[in-house]
Amino acid sequence: MTAVIDRLALIGVGLIGGSIARAAREYGAAREIVATARSAETRKRVAELGIADRVVETNAEAARDADLVIVCIPVGASGPVAAEIAGSLKQGAIVSDVGSVKAAVLNDMAPHIPNGVHLIPAHPVAGTENSGPDSGFAELFVNRWCILTPPVGADAAAVEKLGAFWSALGANVEVMTAEHHDMVLAITSHLPHLIAYTIVGTAEEFSTVSRSEVLKFSAGGFRDFTRIAASDPTMWRDVFLHNKDAVLEMLAQFSEDLAKLTRAMRRGDGETLFDHFTRTRAIRRGIVQIGQDSAAPDFGRPHQAKPGAPLPRPYAADDE
Amino acid sequence: MTAVIDRLALIGVGLIGGSIARAAREYGAAREIVATARSAETRKRVAELGIADRVVETNAEAARDADLVIVCIPVGASGPVAAEIAGSLKQGAIVSDVGSVKAAVLNDMAPHIPNGVHLIPAHPVAGTENSGPDSGFAELFVNRWCILTPPVGADAAAVEKLGAFWSALGANVEVMTAEHHDMVLAITSHLPHLIAYTIVGTAEEFSTVSRSEVLKFSAGGFRDFTRIAASDPTMWRDVFLHNKDAVLEMLAQFSEDLAKLTRAMRRGDGETLFDHFTRTRAIRRGIVQIGQDSAAPDFGRPHQAKPGAPLPRPYAADDE
Repeated sequence: MTAVIDRLALIGVGLIGGSIARAAREYGAAREIVATARSAETRKRVAELGIADRVVETNAEAARDADLVIVCIPVGASGPVAAEIAGSLKQGAIVSDVGSVKAAVLNDMAPHIPNGVHLIPAHPVAGTENSGPDSGFAELFVNRWCILTPPVGADAAAVEKLGAFWSALGANVEVMTAEHHDMVLAITSHLPHLIAYTIVGTAEEFSTVSRSEVLKFSAGGFRDFTRIAASDPTMWRDVFLHNKDAVLEMLAQFSEDLAKLTRAMRRGDGETLFDHFTRTRAIRRGIVQIGQDSAAPDFGRPHQAKPGAPLPRPYAADDE
Repeated sequence: MTAVIDRLALIGVGLIGGSIARAAREYGAAREIVATARSAETRKRVAELGIADRVVETNAEAARDADLVIVCIPVGASGPVAAEIAGSLKQGAIVSDVGSVKAAVLNDMAPHIPNGVHLIPAHPVAGTENSGPDSGFAELFVNRWCILTPPVGADAAAVEKLGAFWSALGANVEVMTAEHHDMVLAITSHLPHLIAYTIVGTAEEFSTVSRSEVLKFSAGGFRDFTRIAASDPTMWRDVFLHNKDAVLEMLAQFSEDLAKLTRAMRRGDGETLFDHFTRTRAIRRGIVQIGQDSAAPDFGRPHQAKPGAPLPRPYAADDE
């Protein structure tokens, strides 16, 4: 099988960049992988892990003669990085990214991209709560969606090539405008993260309930929020700063809906609560049916088999 | 080993009642298990599953001569059920429950409980998003907390016996007042559920983003909320109606915190966002360290190994 991409350059090797590197090699999607990262420590670790063919020191050097450059960094850094690589991009190269916001990335990068180079932003909707090059794995994108947001007038062959690359990594590919992407992600990802970050912080502010109680009794629901509130702070700061308008719009609707449920609770209106809770159950079913979440109860969390038996690894107290 | 309890009566056999039945037998915590349920269909199913020694038709019949009666029903039904069983409770019996609200349960049940019978409400902080007798399993309570909320002046031996029963099922036992329990659970469970129920409903209200897009791209965070928004509607309606004051208090703090993060976003104050997001990460670490959640990334969700390979069972499209 011929690789989809001859030379792949990865700028930034965290959870996503590290997973692309592993997947591209494992599934034969790129012939050669050149990687770089801002910190010397990360570059050293990437070299040790051996997940790239070459690790170089600068963004410009990584991008030189690459057929596909994927920028895997917090979206706030997209503009400056585009400026740094502009001079070493070869004609016909594709420049893409993995950011969770697309209109801002397009705006920030486009002015720096030379004629004859194809800027096609993209967003693989996949991830875990972990960060850094060690947290990546080849299977991360399998059966997940990757959204491409080519600007108006983008080269169709380049869009197709980038789509083929993501398909080779196991992803399903969808194309939409950057603006629409930002609305969709505001509700499916950004607002949920904002809410989770908020409530996990709220839990620490009561004098009547101690932190140790919050941790001990978190299995009642709270712990599910903490997973996404453990995501990379820099990445998420940039998401909220760059998709402000869409998130604020979704937040207004959320606040209205929360007020409606609160009113029902205050008035003892059980019927409104019951009807709402029945409706949301159906949405969960839909997500499981299309394979975007595990059907196993409790996300398939392992349950210890016997009282008093040693804790299985995923529950071991010395983890982390 | 002698069983902690001679005759155990379970009134209601859903996820929790069904798990108690299985665990009590598996771990030898009760010599005999008598069960009943409101619907004939559930009683029939419990008999088919064979998880109780006897299935009877009425609550009064189930409670007769039992040493421990555990009421496993939505908290709103606690009072009427206490009235039904009052006449058949034997002297020295313990009456308990599993509800997620404790002060209201104590108030509703206490007036019906005869002298010489020990009412000791309890709450195992464990569960999944599934309901019904088929969804129960013996390991549900292992390494989870069960909170006992004995009223003032409760019989110490009875409290100890109920604690020993839950310990035999693998749970860690803690004792506190009903009022304190309701505050702790308001933040660790009730408010998270209210928020999850709200946002999952909100996602359906935008004309610009379709339901199918919400489902497809839910891996960006939304799907984690849908799991708890798929919990039993009747149970949760009753929780919110019976722990209104504590939930409203937590909600007020949450709204304030959300306003603070929203303001930071609107003003482009990245430092406030970053600081908050860094703080919440530490709470996640605490929960994993004490074994109340899986350390495996993504809750250990299975990831398909190869692009194009058949979906592993938990992702199968015909699952439910």
